[in-house]
Amino acid sequence: SMDHIIIGGVAGGMSAATRLRRLDEDAHITVIERSGHVSFANCGLPYHVGGLIEDRESLLLQTPSSLGRRFGLDVRVGTEAVRIDRERRVVVVRELATGTESELPYDHVLLSPGARPVRPPIPGIERALSLRDIEDTDALVAASRPARTAVIIGGGFIGLELAENLTHRGIAVTVVEATDQVMAPLDPEMVAPVHDHLRASGVTLRLGSAVTAIGRDTVTLSTGDEDAPVEEVRADLVVAAVGVRPDTRLAVDAGLDTGPLGGILVDSRFRTSDPRILAVGDAVEKRDALDGEQVLVPLANTANRQGRMAADIMAGLPAHDRPVLGTAIVGVFGLQVATTGWNEKRLVASGRPHRVIHTHPASHATYYPGAEGMSLKLLVDRDTDAILGAQGVGREGVDKRIDVIATAMAGGISASALADLELAYAPQFASAKDPVNLLGYVADNLRTGLARSIQWHELDEAVADGAVLVDVRTREEHDSGAIPGAVLVPVDELRQRLEEIPAGPVVVHCAVGQRGHVAAQVLTHAGREVRNLDGGYRTWLAGTSARELVAVA
Amino acid sequence: SMDHIIIGGVAGGMSAATRLRRLDEDAHITVIERSGHVSFANCGLPYHVGGLIEDRESLLLQTPSSLGRRFGLDVRVGTEAVRIDRERRVVVVRELATGTESELPYDHVLLSPGARPVRPPIPGIERALSLRDIEDTDALVAASRPARTAVIIGGGFIGLELAENLTHRGIAVTVVEATDQVMAPLDPEMVAPVHDHLRASGVTLRLGSAVTAIGRDTVTLSTGDEDAPVEEVRADLVVAAVGVRPDTRLAVDAGLDTGPLGGILVDSRFRTSDPRILAVGDAVEKRDALDGEQVLVPLANTANRQGRMAADIMAGLPAHDRPVLGTAIVGVFGLQVATTGWNEKRLVASGRPHRVIHTHPASHATYYPGAEGMSLKLLVDRDTDAILGAQGVGREGVDKRIDVIATAMAGGISASALADLELAYAPQFASAKDPVNLLGYVADNLRTGLARSIQWHELDEAVADGAVLVDVRTREEHDSGAIPGAVLVPVDELRQRLEEIPAGPVVVHCAVGQRGHVAAQVLTHAGREVRNLDGGYRTWLAGTSARELVAVA
Ligand SMILES: Cc1cc2nc3c(=O)[nH]c(=O)nc-3n(C[C@H](O)[C@H](O)[C@H](O)COP(=O)(O)OP(=O)(O)OC[C@H]3O[C@@H](n4cnc5c(N)ncnc54)[C@H](O)[C@@H]3O)c2cc1C
Ligand SMILES: Cc1cc2nc3c(=O)[nH]c(=O)nc-3n(C[C@H](O)[C@H](O)[C@H](O)COP(=O)(O)OP(=O)(O)OC[C@H]3O[C@@H](n4cnc5c(N)ncnc54)[C@H](O)[C@@H]3O)c2cc1C
Ligand SMILES: CC(C)(COP(=O)(O)OP(=O)(O)OC[C@H]1O[C@@H](n2cnc3c(N)ncnc32)[C@H](O)[C@@H]1OP(=O)(O)O)[C@@H](O)C(=O)NCCC(=O)NCCS
Ligand SMILES: CC(C)(COP(=O)(O)OP(=O)(O)OC[C@H]1O[C@@H](n2cnc3c(N)ncnc32)[C@H](O)[C@@H]1OP(=O)(O)O)[C@@H](O)C(=O)NCCC(=O)NCCS
Repeated sequence: SMDHIIIGGVAGGMSAATRLRRLDEDAHITVIERSGHVSFANCGLPYHVGGLIEDRESLLLQTPSSLGRRFGLDVRVGTEAVRIDRERRVVVVRELATGTESELPYDHVLLSPGARPVRPPIPGIERALSLRDIEDTDALVAASRPARTAVIIGGGFIGLELAENLTHRGIAVTVVEATDQVMAPLDPEMVAPVHDHLRASGVTLRLGSAVTAIGRDTVTLSTGDEDAPVEEVRADLVVAAVGVRPDTRLAVDAGLDTGPLGGILVDSRFRTSDPRILAVGDAVEKRDALDGEQVLVPLANTANRQGRMAADIMAGLPAHDRPVLGTAIVGVFGLQVATTGWNEKRLVASGRPHRVIHTHPASHATYYPGAEGMSLKLLVDRDTDAILGAQGVGREGVDKRIDVIATAMAGGISASALADLELAYAPQFASAKDPVNLLGYVADNLRTGLARSIQWHELDEAVADGAVLVDVRTREEHDSGAIPGAVLVPVDELRQRLEEIPAGPVVVHCAVGQRGHVAAQVLTHAGREVRNLDGGYRTWLAGTSARELVAVA
Repeated sequence: SMDHIIIGGVAGGMSAATRLRRLDEDAHITVIERSGHVSFANCGLPYHVGGLIEDRESLLLQTPSSLGRRFGLDVRVGTEAVRIDRERRVVVVRELATGTESELPYDHVLLSPGARPVRPPIPGIERALSLRDIEDTDALVAASRPARTAVIIGGGFIGLELAENLTHRGIAVTVVEATDQVMAPLDPEMVAPVHDHLRASGVTLRLGSAVTAIGRDTVTLSTGDEDAPVEEVRADLVVAAVGVRPDTRLAVDAGLDTGPLGGILVDSRFRTSDPRILAVGDAVEKRDALDGEQVLVPLANTANRQGRMAADIMAGLPAHDRPVLGTAIVGVFGLQVATTGWNEKRLVASGRPHRVIHTHPASHATYYPGAEGMSLKLLVDRDTDAILGAQGVGREGVDKRIDVIATAMAGGISASALADLELAYAPQFASAKDPVNLLGYVADNLRTGLARSIQWHELDEAVADGAVLVDVRTREEHDSGAIPGAVLVPVDELRQRLEEIPAGPVVVHCAVGQRGHVAAQVLTHAGREVRNLDGGYRTWLAGTSARELVAVA
């Protein structure tokens, strides 16, 4: 019988161990876990900090003894794998409580050691807490009890989840983010409503600011502006949440190859440079679904999937991995923020020709109570009409649309063909033309050249080049906020007032892009050169407010 | 400029008209609508009857004048198209208020006349109301005001929506359904929880019963059993909701071909047997995505999509239709009931080799508050691993999973490959292994032969043939309800108690199938011939209770 040693007993590691047992009843399977717990719900930890998940035990999906009983696994918590001796094919493990070391022989090792929170090199960083495991959670709960103020360094997924949860505990939270936006996977105009919502929920956002020192009960902030006075912010509690880095110490010490991004390098069958050692999860580099390049995607769906598949491979089955889209979602004070594939920033940086579509649909038929607005963004390959990515922000139904788009991407469905998806409709759940279908309509119009659009950040240049900007909303809408320089001609009066529109190229806009589309068609048929402002006033406002913030910061 | 006449001004017709205007500013577009309203939200009508949608105006998405202003459409309500003279290329229309007839010349006609509610030939049927348009809605609202009891004939989508809405008005509702289940697109074991939920919500269900006569304030029921006494049920209000039939009168009178199912016959460019006359929506037969046969799918997503596409075709663009899956959803007192593709009944009837998978996952991570249980069913081609259909029932998240599966079907993603979908995960929204991923795991195990399953309705025969049934749940679970004859050996004790299990083939079961899967692997490795009861005790219970009901009825 085989000796399999699995290092790391949570998402990837334990998914592998249980599957391996189902595939091989005779194997000796040992799981080595440094922390005091296995199979815990990492993703639930922030909500225990906030008290929403009251019962700490509910985060422990399995225990060493339950795993022993059900799966005959030899699970050792509080035990660190300190070295892999590849010559002798043994893993050296140390019981942390006693310091006792011992050697475990192996046929295969699976590494699923995860990722470590980055600890920025700031004076006083010792005081900052991080959140990775149950022990960290206990420490955070304890530290947050007496705290009245907290500074969270980093506005990523975990930082924002903690901002929400510490706020729920009644703590005044400041999020300090070095870049000009939280949630790096989102483009600036999509993140603007997230910024607004965080502020409205009581969080103080300090964008474009860095923590330069952590004191006893304050942190020091700098905006990089030498002339600005140094600023101190109260912080009974400081959390470092500036991202994670693959935990590769063991792999590096064993002489295994790492990749350009600092993760363990594996092939499509999870084999490291030593074929007896496999690796999965947050610790490894993945292949990107769009360009096949190496990428880090520290997410649970992928870690779980890879773990199960690694077990198949260890058991001799023919599985192999597929590339990743990086589909992700986070809840932020009731707002759903989700992405899949590439964002515009990355497409621009890589020089890949693309189209951008913004819409602002409702989560379900607006005549049925409870419909919520959302913003969607679709990124499309200009040459092939392939979907390159999507982003969504809203209170409801964003998760569904991003999952549908991620599935469409996996199935090779083109952007225009989203129009043809047959999605389940009743008024509580969707619209007869689902938001995803509408993205397909818009994509199809752009693909065929029926419609031409212009992005919010291209508007200034177009106007400078002589374009006339026409607002086709109603007077009431126009009066309550308009783009400077826009001429008001409501869409329903357009046919009668064509001659009022000055000569030259025209940009039309409405609130979200839909009436603009109707107006653009009328003007095009009248012989005008027209572009429709993509996403309308709403996207323009979000985009320019994001840009102004950058200018101010 | 072209003369386009569109007959029917709601989902398909008006989607065509607006799109056609965007494509052709010069065309003369006339929309003929018999009822007093266009662009109304058919799908919202039941909720206005129930009072949830209070404002009747909110159901009117557009009006003739708004459509005139925005789209330059000539919209004539209260006007019936009475005849199409194909020789002379005119449509004869009658203004219903005055009886005045006139002729409208055409280059193209688009028929989107929808479907009519079937009126069963029951004595007294005149008293039964139906629900199709705003006028029907007004009549139902008026009739339900004084009513204390209602009988709804037919347990389809609209019947159940009305059952909910009339109940909300405080009316005691009886649903009379001639077959042994409501919601024909679902298989019996999937519909069982819907029956339970309807009853728990106060609806009286009379399955396997027919209304044989409608009296002044009662209806007469018969179960077909000659010996049973005739039964009268109080019914201040009677609604006929036994389905819809394509409205083909105009097409048939004009000599256009209809198909085997009684719908208008069209090609993939919506052309009827007269290429100047196109038809879309509920009135036409579609092609089925699985076998390419003719099928009726009277749903709004398809009607809207076809309408838009027909406009493209009328304007000379190269669009063509795709086959339909029939993806549908209905809310029933807070329960989501959704389907896509074929059900098991249809697969069995057609003799197509298939696999069946039942699961009972949670809508999101169970450690995060608010997770709801759901039941999913996946139908898989035995030879190709293609997804053939899916059904879901639950309080939350069913819509998302059915949409994802429908998208996977459209993208040609195989059942096993559902395991690899990268769906958005955070604990509020899903699980790290999403229910859709888990369906993929189970499908993969069946495909590779790693696991073998048995369906609830095959169990009796297996046991009669000598199989041993082993319940691997806990004693507490077993004691609170078990399958007759099952031997209890909890999965966590199985390895120690292998010798207790009598010789012969084994069927294992747990609550939902998951522990059964673990147990089956242990027993298989011990050399036993094992099948795992698909969907576990929960599916067995639902299936057998459905069957008993049939036996009783
Ligand atoms: C607070 C938080 C919230 C998150 N929320 C989400 C979310 O909402 N959605 C999402 O998709 N993902 C989320 N994630 C990420 C997700 O948890 C990870 O992607 C996933 O757990 C990675 O699995 P893994 O097996 O690679 O690593 P982990 O699950 O982190 O497991 C690695 C384990 O290996 C152990 N280990 C490391 N080195 C050794 C050694 N030498 N010896 C012994 N043991 C060792 C560690 O102690 C650790 O327990 C979250 C993560 C955190 C921390
Ligand atoms: C109560 C109810 C609830 C529904 N709920 C849902 C749901 O939740 N989800 C879903 O997907 N679908 C639902 N549907 C079905 C959906 O509304 C239809 O599939 C869709 O409206 C069909 O579009 P259509 O254009 O083919 O026909 P319709 O929208 O029905 O429009 C046809 C119109 O043509 C008019 N007409 C017919 N003949 C003539 C003539 N000779 N001259 C002039 N006018 C004529 C009719 O008056 C009618 O208004 C529901 C339907 C009803 C009635
Ligand atoms: C839970 C954990 C121990 C893995 O246990 P597991 O038994 O492999 O996984 P699940 O409980 O998800 O069950 C999946 C198995 O049950 C099977 N299954 C599930 N439902 C089934 C059903 N109704 N019928 C038959 N089989 C079923 C699946 O096919 C799969 O078996 P397979 O891998 O042999 O195909 C591991 O994932 C873990 O430790 N998770 C917690 C940590 C974590 O994921 N953190 C990040 C997110 S918070
Ligand atoms: C509403 C109705 C009149 C159609 O009007 P419509 O303007 O064609 O359709 P929508 O309002 O859905 O808008 C879709 C159009 O706006 C465009 N659009 C939507 N959002 C856009 C955006 N943000 N930017 C640019 N264009 C956008 C779409 O591309 C599409 O135009 P296209 O067809 O030229 O591609 C018709 O569908 C109807 O009468 N519906 C009510 C009846 C019904 O559907 N009943 C059944 C369900 S209850």
